[in-house]
Amino acid sequence: MKNAATVRRRGANRGRRAQDRASRGGRPVLVQKETELKIISSPTEMQAFAEAARCRGERIALIPTMGYLHEGHLSLMREGRRLGTMVIASIFVNPTQFGANEDFSRYPRDMERDCSLMRTVPVDVLFAPQSTDMYLADSQTWVDVTKVTQGLCGPLRPGHFRGVATVVTKLFNIVKPHVALFGEKDFQQLRTIQRMVQDLNMDLEIIPMPTVREADGIAMSSRNVYLSPSERETALCISRALSAARNALATGTNTAAGVAGVATAVLAREPGVTIEYVEAVDAENLEPVGVVKRPIVVAIAARVGKVRLIDNAVMAPALSA
Amino acid sequence: MKNAATVRRRGANRGRRAQDRASRGGRPVLVQKETELKIISSPTEMQAFAEAARCRGERIALIPTMGYLHEGHLSLMREGRRLGTMVIASIFVNPTQFGANEDFSRYPRDMERDCSLMRTVPVDVLFAPQSTDMYLADSQTWVDVTKVTQGLCGPLRPGHFRGVATVVTKLFNIVKPHVALFGEKDFQQLRTIQRMVQDLNMDLEIIPMPTVREADGIAMSSRNVYLSPSERETALCISRALSAARNALATGTNTAAGVAGVATAVLAREPGVTIEYVEAVDAENLEPVGVVKRPIVVAIAARVGKVRLIDNAVMAPALSA
Repeated sequence: MKNAATVRRRGANRGRRAQDRASRGGRPVLVQKETELKIISSPTEMQAFAEAARCRGERIALIPTMGYLHEGHLSLMREGRRLGTMVIASIFVNPTQFGANEDFSRYPRDMERDCSLMRTVPVDVLFAPQSTDMYLADSQTWVDVTKVTQGLCGPLRPGHFRGVATVVTKLFNIVKPHVALFGEKDFQQLRTIQRMVQDLNMDLEIIPMPTVREADGIAMSSRNVYLSPSERETALCISRALSAARNALATGTNTAAGVAGVATAVLAREPGVTIEYVEAVDAENLEPVGVVKRPIVVAIAARVGKVRLIDNAVMAPALSA
Repeated sequence: MKNAATVRRRGANRGRRAQDRASRGGRPVLVQKETELKIISSPTEMQAFAEAARCRGERIALIPTMGYLHEGHLSLMREGRRLGTMVIASIFVNPTQFGANEDFSRYPRDMERDCSLMRTVPVDVLFAPQSTDMYLADSQTWVDVTKVTQGLCGPLRPGHFRGVATVVTKLFNIVKPHVALFGEKDFQQLRTIQRMVQDLNMDLEIIPMPTVREADGIAMSSRNVYLSPSERETALCISRALSAARNALATGTNTAAGVAGVATAVLAREPGVTIEYVEAVDAENLEPVGVVKRPIVVAIAARVGKVRLIDNAVMAPALSA
């Protein structure tokens, strides 16, 4: 086999972890000192490695990222560590999910820091492919999730979710995970991937993880680095708007439009904020809602200066009195 | 595990075949008398069964069909028997690949005869799902192969290849094959699936198999049953047209248009035949060709009476003198 050397190298490590597992009733054990991080860039090698891992009984947890890791990503990786016996993270700034006028070329990158952070989890394997290896010449196949991508960011970022669904399908086929973890911060992306997995009978479990926030409430995002200190301050109105929406729903506002209106009002008061959308939609299928009877997600996209930020909150209607 | 009974039942069988394999240096042995055909209709059960089979080292060969089997299908299954240790055939008349005015509801079906034929191969497992189990309510995800589907049947059957690519993706995810076999009779479908597998990094090998023909040259097709005896006679002009094209290319006609023209002339002489298209295109990417320098496929779609028939032939240019 192509990656026999690779497998042998992992073998030593595996033996140790398997022993630990055996002595604790089958649960994987976090070995604090383990800092080996295997880096694979070839999709073919990654696929053979993953297949071999599955064949010897590993349970693979995948955390797909675009790098420039923050605490949000790390929370996914730590949960992956708990759920799998092999944690594989990917870093790939996927060109097909960026629009022509978006920030693909200047998307922040810091591979060295990312690797250090992953070693603290620890992550076992980093899959970091080149774009030319992921998209061969004449590549022409797309995965399209049609309904949940129609609203919210869909019309504003044409092709974005098609790019996401396609690259995630590719990553799933390459890394062959049993579970894959996605943050709720990108809520429409999460719902897109969940639908795709169900509709295409992909044999893995999607684990949604809560948005991680800074102490002041701002949702963690690699793009926060674009914000100037004053923009950073201004951006706080987004999480404040979500809190206001939650309060409104809890205290008698019972229509989606009413809840969204409360959030909009908070943002509209703030100079320097351009609203792209504020919507309250069904939390499962992202469809329009009148009177709120089931959980909704309030989703916001807004520009602070030139920086586009998104955030959301899922909230259930108050129990009827 | 959900299908423990299932696995145990197969277990007995497996033991026998594994023994046979061991005694002949690892090659699977065709046990002539073996006529057990396990039938699975639930996608979830099929997926768990396939995963368990992979985990114990089976090599799965999948032959996806729409049933009403003929010698063409059986040639795929026999090759699957040679390539895999477990042969799984699927029968599913996929609604999403039929147009509104096409023959979905009257597509010929004969499950009992199909099962008898499969037992002669023998096929190990038949996956025969219900449409409502394959496409859940609110299903909304499509796999779209964009370039190789643009010509030939693409414009005449809008949505057809999207339906094919989507259902084949689902079948691959459910049956988890190491190899899957497709006939060259549906040449554009074959190229579509090959592109999809490459573009989406699906970890399996696609095996193309030559078109099987009746003694008089007509390509085998489940739809031949629609033909009246005189239409059946008329339909022979299609394979004759392909032979004429091949002769022309071998004897000096050196443009795709010239080769296609020769085939068209044969069909045009025949009353009762309506040409949908006759095209000579690059055999790999199905793009237009001027002077023939690499292999081309001459592809024909024509109606004989109300019956739509397709056929094709791949041919290489004569070596330059």
